[in-house]
Amino acid sequence: MVQRPTADEPTADISQAVWRTVAEDGIEATTVRRVAERAGCTTGRIMHHFRTRSAMLIHARELLYERTAARADAAERAIGDPQERLIEVLSGSLTLDAERGQEARVWTGFAAAALPDGDMRQTHIASTRRWRARIESLVEACAGQASTTATRHAAMRLIALTEGLAGLSSLDPDSYPPEQQTTLLREEVTLTLRALA
Amino acid sequence: MVQRPTADEPTADISQAVWRTVAEDGIEATTVRRVAERAGCTTGRIMHHFRTRSAMLIHARELLYERTAARADAAERAIGDPQERLIEVLSGSLTLDAERGQEARVWTGFAAAALPDGDMRQTHIASTRRWRARIESLVEACAGQASTTATRHAAMRLIALTEGLAGLSSLDPDSYPPEQQTTLLREEVTLTLRALA
Repeated sequence: MVQRPTADEPTADISQAVWRTVAEDGIEATTVRRVAERAGCTTGRIMHHFRTRSAMLIHARELLYERTAARADAAERAIGDPQERLIEVLSGSLTLDAERGQEARVWTGFAAAALPDGDMRQTHIASTRRWRARIESLVEACAGQASTTATRHAAMRLIALTEGLAGLSSLDPDSYPPEQQTTLLREEVTLTLRALA
Repeated sequence: MVQRPTADEPTADISQAVWRTVAEDGIEATTVRRVAERAGCTTGRIMHHFRTRSAMLIHARELLYERTAARADAAERAIGDPQERLIEVLSGSLTLDAERGQEARVWTGFAAAALPDGDMRQTHIASTRRWRARIESLVEACAGQASTTATRHAAMRLIALTEGLAGLSSLDPDSYPPEQQTTLLREEVTLTLRALA
């Protein structure tokens, strides 16, 4: 985890302004000025919390991880059947509703900004590795007899599939509506677990 | 296909400068000024070819499609076995070497810039749909007896998997080295075709 470069945690209204600017206006339009306009405050107040634009974008990426993890935790608590639990947790990164649609936009925007930026990339790597560890243990709960390698590969394929669907559907929602995404994920989980059995 | 807003096709040096700026410096740093610096020309010359920054980015996305399609055409001509042909064409969007690594960076950068831009999004949609049609016909060549729906779903899952792997590996190459990506793709194609048989 990259250290936030300021002592003061941003308030909820600042967090919300950063999040909505990345999700709705796109990563390129997410400037300190634009976030300040949305939050109804000075650019100085934004800079007080983040010091740099990169730190502000890292904050959005951390919010994304927290939102996704909270949804996954809730699904893990609520669902007893291991296969349905795996599907529900993975569904957290599909664009099945407006909330997850926003999250996918933040993901894509952050990924593009992180490609040439080491600090941002480290945040992204840490989050995606934690996510992969979660999916690996959910796969293991479905197919405990499978080898570690087979379980890891299954988790990687499932993560790649859901990330890919989120990206494709964000840009071409007509080709990948929510029910289509769900069908494709269910088919994939069925094939994957059958192969591990 | 979005109409290029100028009569003059960009020369190879301008095309190369646009491409390398998106791939190496990232989408946010891809300004008309930066591209002109790389091409060693005036910003006026860049604007003469593209008129807008969006049109310049659309040019990069079209180059990406052309490069990917040329590689896929070559693979289709060279490889007789339908399953190996499918795998080789799909490998074209994995980050297996420096060239494809650059292409994945252009893809991610363009996707982020296209989210809030209708013209850019149309270009992306047209390219990804043509790519999907190609993969559908390659899947059909492997499993001609499968239903149209099953073939379409298989193609969508394979495309999502490879796009997802390209994105994940661009940001975290240590977790998804080339041989890992190839293994995951081969496993996926095997499972998919077995299910269609």
